[in-house]
Amino acid sequence: MPTIRLHIAYDGTNYHGWQIQARDRSIEGELTAALTRILDADEAIKVQGASRTDSGVHARGQVAHFRHDTDRTIWDFCRGLNGLTDDDICIVRAEVADDAFHARHSARGKRYRYRIWNHRFVHPFERHRCWHVCGTLDQELMASVARQFVGEHDFAGFRSVHCSSPTTVRCMKRVEVVADTDEPFVDVIVEGDAFLQHMVRVMVGTIVEIGLGRLDASRVHQVLETGDRRLAGRTAPAQGLTLCEVRYPEFDWEGDEPNIGGFYDAASTPITCY
Amino acid sequence: MPTIRLHIAYDGTNYHGWQIQARDRSIEGELTAALTRILDADEAIKVQGASRTDSGVHARGQVAHFRHDTDRTIWDFCRGLNGLTDDDICIVRAEVADDAFHARHSARGKRYRYRIWNHRFVHPFERHRCWHVCGTLDQELMASVARQFVGEHDFAGFRSVHCSSPTTVRCMKRVEVVADTDEPFVDVIVEGDAFLQHMVRVMVGTIVEIGLGRLDASRVHQVLETGDRRLAGRTAPAQGLTLCEVRYPEFDWEGDEPNIGGFYDAASTPITCY
Repeated sequence: MPTIRLHIAYDGTNYHGWQIQARDRSIEGELTAALTRILDADEAIKVQGASRTDSGVHARGQVAHFRHDTDRTIWDFCRGLNGLTDDDICIVRAEVADDAFHARHSARGKRYRYRIWNHRFVHPFERHRCWHVCGTLDQELMASVARQFVGEHDFAGFRSVHCSSPTTVRCMKRVEVVADTDEPFVDVIVEGDAFLQHMVRVMVGTIVEIGLGRLDASRVHQVLETGDRRLAGRTAPAQGLTLCEVRYPEFDWEGDEPNIGGFYDAASTPITCY
Repeated sequence: MPTIRLHIAYDGTNYHGWQIQARDRSIEGELTAALTRILDADEAIKVQGASRTDSGVHARGQVAHFRHDTDRTIWDFCRGLNGLTDDDICIVRAEVADDAFHARHSARGKRYRYRIWNHRFVHPFERHRCWHVCGTLDQELMASVARQFVGEHDFAGFRSVHCSSPTTVRCMKRVEVVADTDEPFVDVIVEGDAFLQHMVRVMVGTIVEIGLGRLDASRVHQVLETGDRRLAGRTAPAQGLTLCEVRYPEFDWEGDEPNIGGFYDAASTPITCY
């Protein structure tokens, strides 16, 4: 029963997140419906995603897998899924994976970008893809605060109150504040082994409140020590967040067939932001 | 009666163009309604734009003016207009202009960018801001064809059949094909003194059809010679077009007051793409 791995980009604005919902539109729901139709299956085909992105969160490098027992080719899935979903979902790549591959369990790390638009007025083109922050941000302070997250910590205070994960220790490889040189965008790049619910958004909310002078810089350390969510900043809005990349220990590249090409650089790493 | 000059950016997706309409939403209509409310005027305030952008066309550097006889400040207009219009319209800058200033008549040139997404699948994030062209484009040929437009020509064959302009000779300063180095975007930059209705879009449609091998490269010369619209290519879709800049002979800079700052570089030229 071949396993197919999909690399997916989507504008999350019009979806209630990745996870399938009873009534609302979701990315998983759209892909499941399309696949079930392509495979002419009696039962819904399970599409397993690497990350359950929240409502309104975007992705440039989401990864998912499914299994099937038909003679459909990789191209059938690529063309079919892109044809049957709306233009705000794009299957960037599809390929045959090892039978052992599991989009979520095999993942070794993820990289997110959180984008802030630091200007008096809303950006007319990027309004759905960033958090509009008006006040003056102390970017140097934000950068130094961000570095405190790097390494292994208990992130119990940096997650949603609804998060049910039994473990809260996670390892961050990179938490960096990057300012655009031309425009007033400020990006927070977060890369780590795994994430708790809303974790990136609470981290960014806290970094921004410190940057605005509303919270003291010592708060990050305090929250990491106490695990008290109430001491951290607000949860930054979903629309600023993009899942850029999911990392796996290694890939079996399938050569020409699955590579749709052009959309991203496939030469160096399996999944790259475009 | 002070004259106020506005620099405006907008995402044209949800509007029926610049020009005010009886029923449909337009940029001019939204600004007129907002200004009339800010000035508490009995009659609608006329907002004169530099360019009547088509339905679905975007702007980063549209310029407009209006006159008023109140004691409202530049900041009242800036805050008021940004507050009363939707987030897809942004007043980037406002300033007091010479009484003789007229956004349309004083303009000496305009620069447009037409963006093509040359890829097999639709771009999930830029889908409303480019023309999705699937086939292989001969970009070198396109670049050489584009150069034929530079200089003074009769553009009678490169306009809408509904265009009512009595003169059709225009002067193009720059028509250039620029490929993105990272992603499969191909931009056509067009700069000239003035433009006929749909002129940039018919030029781009012709350049693209030549790039796809559907029209011979000699067509541009033929259409410029004969003025026969039927020999030119299709009108490229509106959504790929952005008005980047309107040029004026000179500006009286008003110093701190009107400069909202940060959104674009005001140091060198009056209006710059951000």
